[in-house]
Amino acid sequence: MFLETVRSEGLAHLSYLIGDGGEAFVIDPRRDCEPYLAIADRHEARITRIFETHRNEDYVVGSCELAQRTGAVIHHGAAFPFGYGKPAAEGERFTAGALQLAVLETPGHTAESLSFALYDTATGDDEAVAVFTGDTLFVDGSGRIDLYPDSPEEAAARLHDSIHRKLLPLGDSVPLFPAHGAGSVCGASIAARELSTLGYERRHNRELSLTREAFIRHKSAEQPYQPPYFRQMERLNGEGPPLLGPERWPQPVSAADFAAAQAGGMQLVDLREPEAIAGALIPGSLAIPLEMLGAFAGWFLSYERDIGLVSHHPLHIAEAVTRLHRLGYERIRLWLKEGLHGWEVTGRPYATVPAIHATELKRRLESHQPFTLLDVRSRSEIAAAALPGATEIYLGELPGRLNDIPVERPIVTFCGTGRRSIIAASILLQQGFSGVEVCLGSLAACKAVGCPLR
Amino acid sequence: MFLETVRSEGLAHLSYLIGDGGEAFVIDPRRDCEPYLAIADRHEARITRIFETHRNEDYVVGSCELAQRTGAVIHHGAAFPFGYGKPAAEGERFTAGALQLAVLETPGHTAESLSFALYDTATGDDEAVAVFTGDTLFVDGSGRIDLYPDSPEEAAARLHDSIHRKLLPLGDSVPLFPAHGAGSVCGASIAARELSTLGYERRHNRELSLTREAFIRHKSAEQPYQPPYFRQMERLNGEGPPLLGPERWPQPVSAADFAAAQAGGMQLVDLREPEAIAGALIPGSLAIPLEMLGAFAGWFLSYERDIGLVSHHPLHIAEAVTRLHRLGYERIRLWLKEGLHGWEVTGRPYATVPAIHATELKRRLESHQPFTLLDVRSRSEIAAAALPGATEIYLGELPGRLNDIPVERPIVTFCGTGRRSIIAASILLQQGFSGVEVCLGSLAACKAVGCPLR
Amino acid sequence: MFLETVRSEGLAHLSYLIGDGGEAFVIDPRRDCEPYLAIADRHEARITRIFETHRNEDYVVGSCELAQRTGAVIHHGAAFPFGYGKPAAEGERFTAGALQLAVLETPGHTAESLSFALYDTATGDDEAVAVFTGDTLFVDGSGRIDLYPDSPEEAAARLHDSIHRKLLPLGDSVPLFPAHGAGSVCGASIAARELSTLGYERRHNRELSLTREAFIRHKSAEQPYQPPYFRQMERLNGEGPPLLGPERWPQPVSAADFAAAQAGGMQLVDLREPEAIAGALIPGSLAIPLEMLGAFAGWFLSYERDIGLVSHHPLHIAEAVTRLHRLGYERIRLWLKEGLHGWEVTGRPYATVPAIHATELKRRLESHQPFTLLDVRSRSEIAAAALPGATEIYLGELPGRLNDIPVERPIVTFCGTGRRSIIAASILLQQGFSGVEVCLGSLAACKAVGCPLR
Amino acid sequence: MFLETVRSEGLAHLSYLIGDGGEAFVIDPRRDCEPYLAIADRHEARITRIFETHRNEDYVVGSCELAQRTGAVIHHGAAFPFGYGKPAAEGERFTAGALQLAVLETPGHTAESLSFALYDTATGDDEAVAVFTGDTLFVDGSGRIDLYPDSPEEAAARLHDSIHRKLLPLGDSVPLFPAHGAGSVCGASIAARELSTLGYERRHNRELSLTREAFIRHKSAEQPYQPPYFRQMERLNGEGPPLLGPERWPQPVSAADFAAAQAGGMQLVDLREPEAIAGALIPGSLAIPLEMLGAFAGWFLSYERDIGLVSHHPLHIAEAVTRLHRLGYERIRLWLKEGLHGWEVTGRPYATVPAIHATELKRRLESHQPFTLLDVRSRSEIAAAALPGATEIYLGELPGRLNDIPVERPIVTFCGTGRRSIIAASILLQQGFSGVEVCLGSLAACKAVGCPLR
Repeated sequence: MFLETVRSEGLAHLSYLIGDGGEAFVIDPRRDCEPYLAIADRHEARITRIFETHRNEDYVVGSCELAQRTGAVIHHGAAFPFGYGKPAAEGERFTAGALQLAVLETPGHTAESLSFALYDTATGDDEAVAVFTGDTLFVDGSGRIDLYPDSPEEAAARLHDSIHRKLLPLGDSVPLFPAHGAGSVCGASIAARELSTLGYERRHNRELSLTREAFIRHKSAEQPYQPPYFRQMERLNGEGPPLLGPERWPQPVSAADFAAAQAGGMQLVDLREPEAIAGALIPGSLAIPLEMLGAFAGWFLSYERDIGLVSHHPLHIAEAVTRLHRLGYERIRLWLKEGLHGWEVTGRPYATVPAIHATELKRRLESHQPFTLLDVRSRSEIAAAALPGATEIYLGELPGRLNDIPVERPIVTFCGTGRRSIIAASILLQQGFSGVEVCLGSLAACKAVGCPLR
Repeated sequence: MFLETVRSEGLAHLSYLIGDGGEAFVIDPRRDCEPYLAIADRHEARITRIFETHRNEDYVVGSCELAQRTGAVIHHGAAFPFGYGKPAAEGERFTAGALQLAVLETPGHTAESLSFALYDTATGDDEAVAVFTGDTLFVDGSGRIDLYPDSPEEAAARLHDSIHRKLLPLGDSVPLFPAHGAGSVCGASIAARELSTLGYERRHNRELSLTREAFIRHKSAEQPYQPPYFRQMERLNGEGPPLLGPERWPQPVSAADFAAAQAGGMQLVDLREPEAIAGALIPGSLAIPLEMLGAFAGWFLSYERDIGLVSHHPLHIAEAVTRLHRLGYERIRLWLKEGLHGWEVTGRPYATVPAIHATELKRRLESHQPFTLLDVRSRSEIAAAALPGATEIYLGELPGRLNDIPVERPIVTFCGTGRRSIIAASILLQQGFSGVEVCLGSLAACKAVGCPLR
Repeated sequence: MFLETVRSEGLAHLSYLIGDGGEAFVIDPRRDCEPYLAIADRHEARITRIFETHRNEDYVVGSCELAQRTGAVIHHGAAFPFGYGKPAAEGERFTAGALQLAVLETPGHTAESLSFALYDTATGDDEAVAVFTGDTLFVDGSGRIDLYPDSPEEAAARLHDSIHRKLLPLGDSVPLFPAHGAGSVCGASIAARELSTLGYERRHNRELSLTREAFIRHKSAEQPYQPPYFRQMERLNGEGPPLLGPERWPQPVSAADFAAAQAGGMQLVDLREPEAIAGALIPGSLAIPLEMLGAFAGWFLSYERDIGLVSHHPLHIAEAVTRLHRLGYERIRLWLKEGLHGWEVTGRPYATVPAIHATELKRRLESHQPFTLLDVRSRSEIAAAALPGATEIYLGELPGRLNDIPVERPIVTFCGTGRRSIIAASILLQQGFSGVEVCLGSLAACKAVGCPLR
Repeated sequence: MFLETVRSEGLAHLSYLIGDGGEAFVIDPRRDCEPYLAIADRHEARITRIFETHRNEDYVVGSCELAQRTGAVIHHGAAFPFGYGKPAAEGERFTAGALQLAVLETPGHTAESLSFALYDTATGDDEAVAVFTGDTLFVDGSGRIDLYPDSPEEAAARLHDSIHRKLLPLGDSVPLFPAHGAGSVCGASIAARELSTLGYERRHNRELSLTREAFIRHKSAEQPYQPPYFRQMERLNGEGPPLLGPERWPQPVSAADFAAAQAGGMQLVDLREPEAIAGALIPGSLAIPLEMLGAFAGWFLSYERDIGLVSHHPLHIAEAVTRLHRLGYERIRLWLKEGLHGWEVTGRPYATVPAIHATELKRRLESHQPFTLLDVRSRSEIAAAALPGATEIYLGELPGRLNDIPVERPIVTFCGTGRRSIIAASILLQQGFSGVEVCLGSLAACKAVGCPLR
């Protein structure tokens, strides 16, 4: 019997492949499904079933893609009218060699959420050897409940009961395998450690020690951000996402072709590092350094317009295409093949974003020099620590709140370490703001140099 | 915090890399240590410490190799006078970011055996999140005790106490990560499933439900085979094995050069599949299909003589070199570059081993036709099921027991599925036996076609 | 300006990628077209045009596949009514950066055959820097003319004129890049060296020193074999071959599923080495060791029936699928995932083919022992050297000439080195012949051991 | 017979592997010699001889490295007292299968320079099929002669005679394979096309149409730059360079460790793109974007001090290490593992280099605003086109000519496209200059926007 994990960086998404006796099951596959095929091959196993723990809102699920390439059957919860696959009901067991996977209905994060308990019939089929908890229970966290159709309180109550009446009774010795790790938008404060058991969670997960009422209050009070692309994901994952065709690789083009497409309405996404963007960027482009593409593309990019990518590195383009596909973007048309250098040599205009060091920020603050400090971190981050006098607008909400930006110039964009700041700076430039600067290092550097914190 | 497993097929060896905060520890590394470097790179971590659970007898440990490439410190048990590294004592804790690794002295398999409990100080440093059990406790098994310097009873008692007084008290919720999986020579009946917790083992491991006395009796009665290369491994792992130089790749040569080296005393190892060996093999060569090289090379190959490999596939040669290095073989000099085909076209002689089907074996047995059926399986396998009238000599002991082979011809070599049989057949041919045949399919096929079993 | 060669082993097929200034052209692409994309990427170029030198008869051309993935335009000769692409006429020039490719109509091998002269306008556009000669002119050979619609004499005359009036006038200094290397079925006696110039060919190519009349006589007298799959290739390459879908990987299955599919009419192809096939093979299977799949699959495999592959090595399966796709086979359904070992352990029957050494053959011949020696080499090989008393039937024609096999048993299959012999042996077994043996080493070994030659 | 080319980007270095009959020769191998081993493996050949066309001055030759891994014999010219290998004399022929390699003494670039003519004895051993011309003859160029021990005139005369009396007489049909392509420091104006023949060169190479006297005048007047590392290369390549040990990978470290090493004297090399360096760089670091490392590291880096690399991309680090090894640098100790981001979050200082667009430069020039325009291109580039009023100091000579920089501030660094400008900017910052700016796009952009040219 084997169990292997496939991680998708950027989404902090975890999917699993389990198998025995030449057969394998996949839980919550992503769309770029080669890793599952490769792992199954390595174990000389055939993928026969695919299980979805729930209808995902943060990425396009790869079930249909993987089913088309393997002939596997897809199973998901009965409480949502999926446009594909088969419903699986509480108590059903699916067998591959000596392993059995039993279905547990665990509503709360969504109405149709399932968990799956794994048994090894070779040693003991009365006691689970693992449980796949989807977005119901994370390591040191639990799923967000704001996506549930009913009231927050009702959703939180259901989530509590799913955890305490379905999962924990499996026993303290059972390792858990959730659908997300630290950094996911699907749950607050997930631990960086992926390794845990139900017993360890029962004793150490801060949300599990709350009473039912306290848990309901706590979860109902959470206000996680809902990026606009969630709606698109829910629609696609309900209907069954379209299959990716053979290679939709963007065409590498010259600066002239790229500029022409931009003039025709193409969205430009600059994937380079924050420092490179600060050094020079194409006017009108949206900067999202590659590492943050999974987290932020869905806030800003339209599904209805073409996309053009800026980077000189083919591997970055390939990775960006994969990440955008996971978010359901398919109109990725062009690649500025020599990166910004190819643009510069044509004499086309470029913008720059001067980098402001934490010590300069400190000096300006201490000397009461007029300027705008735009902090784009989340509510919870700002609550933990912030500079005095900052204008606080969450990055995802920036395009809709441009009018809340004060008139003082320059505007220094600011975040935890400087990466989100460069995205914010590019949005301001797109919208015609002038005097835009970026604080590389941001709060981390400010702490290190002794800026006063609020 | 991350935990990743590196598996070495052939040895059923499991090693682990754990890390946090840019630092990583490796437990029981193998000699070909690129995977540890690659995993550490992926996590942007630096390997700073290497832990050995015990002095291994079945492979050359890679601690020195990995230390040389990373600058890491090596730690092992204090109860053996290692020629390298530093002793680690009960209760010592080593920190990397939020993780702590605590030393547990768990003698039994060997006198200096250690286990290591892993803690996540970010959530709870009073309760382990994992335990690395070395050869002390396996999934559904425990370590062999015949290598211990003292009496079997004393060793078994110590092993029992290490498991029950050191490991199980860590708590039922703790996942365990042993040094071997199914198929290892270091423990009998290890489960195929790698996933388990101390609680699951406490309830389902057949050896843990025994009383202390029954456990001692049971372990003392085990008589696992001790291949001759164990001595070499113990010596190397005690002194600290020599570093592998830059690439010791065997030279690809022609049949003429290969034959000349054989005439000069080189050992020939034929890595091809059993059917290919049956079809044609070089007189004097030892057949060990690649998959079995880790398990059987150490029984038959001399450390003092050169080795030449037969296969036309460069990937097989590369894998064979790696596996032989793990066993401490370094004189791997030549590779017959076109495989057997290159030999055949020169007109040099080749032998063949006719394949005998289970139905033919059944016919011979039922008609009482005189022939020798040489079953080379282990005592425990033979105890479970065997054909009547077989001569039973364990494969590893065959070279020393040639005189026990009856005079009837032909001799049909026989095992579980036919793979070990081809090794046996090649040994018989080497030693001048004639009329050698191989039963491809062996016991598995015999059962399927209804041979009478003893 | 760059020029890179992509070789397809098995077909001895050569294709080329040339480019400059960010643009690239491909000449005669194969169907598995990733290498062209990778090379273009490395040179940061976009493939804009694809050129076919002629309608191929020996493999499925990849033009449509590559055009679909790049948007490139396809060009080919005007003298055949292709179902896709655009005709290119004598004298047309196509430009990419400083390079120009000029069209030369060179009928002879086929009516619509083209060659392409390459110019570098940066240094001299009056003198070609290379010429792509398709199947018109090879290194030390020229194209076969038996596929031409008209009389052999007329075809040979046109080929002569294409070479002497179109190609050689480009100048002695021009390197040539033909569509095939040594071992191709598209031309007799192509040299193993790929490197040559028109001048070197003019002086050293044995066919170019003939007078026009002698050339016509020589080419008309050639009788190359026409495998039955040529018709299928011509049809597909005329109409435009269907696109390969996303991954048509055969399903790995157990022996039971494999046997059931065989019973239902599936063709079994055993890809293993000759020795492994001699050791044991599935009754009814066709043995074609992987290296010979490109050369012989088209003689024996039906396009209308499913195909199942035997090998335990995934890389061999992947390579076999690629090679079968190149020949237009698409119904590659199953893979016996554990190879023959998985079959043997079920007790299913297997056949064997005893290997006969050259010295045994010599002994039989000298002692006039009755047996059948079946030499399956080609007419030209047999003309060069053969054993006395052999029955000579070309391997490709064997299935249609079974009645020509003498009654003496055993039948020893025989060829140049033993590889084709094992194919022949498997065909005989398929057809119910008994007493089939194989001479591993064959003529090469016979020469080495001093067999009498005819 | 096969011939394959191995290109080393950055050095524009071309090396070759030729072989036949299971044996292979390598010409001018580089130090990272895995590609030769891989190609030889693919052709199932063993590398038996290594030929050096001359003692290289621009990279460390890999002969000793490759010889150590293959047992091959090294051959080079007799006119220099090499500390390793064997001299090869005019007319000697070396055989591998049907190929022969004949030695031609062709002094001029250096005194001991050799060329090698390749013959195929299977078709015609009186006429070469290729010639390896080292640094004697390039496509559209010839070797520099300033490294020759004697007078320029004498060296030029010898080079002329080597070309006209040794190489061209081989015949117009012979393809040539030189040791360098476009961009090499070993010859001026080498063509971008690698494909040529002696005939094509005779007619189109601008230097070959000169009379002997004109050629001598032309070559003697060339004044190519001599980077200081040439001396080191000549010394190493004369004595025989030391073998690279097993992996000298720099240790990935934190910003704190990196800063400490810098304080202790370590040289910092920033490998990032020009825009990223402009955005932010570590004070005191030398910026050399990865693509230019081979061309410029040797001008600025000391062999006697440790080196630390800045980039967050492991592949860039690996490539940088390889390129530095080729130049003989071995003290590559540390890698700032999170790139500049890891530095910024610690609050450590960083510098910036404002990017100046061509239109701004034009404005300043037209408005006669005082500033320093520092053009770091080569003499020949400046001769072709330049902006008025620029201070012209070749990049390689900049550290020694800081006193020639005018006092006007800001200083805008300027080159062909902006890449060398960023190197220059970092050197100025290192030396304490203030007001340093960089013109991204430089001359290319200036031409596009219509700047006045001198």
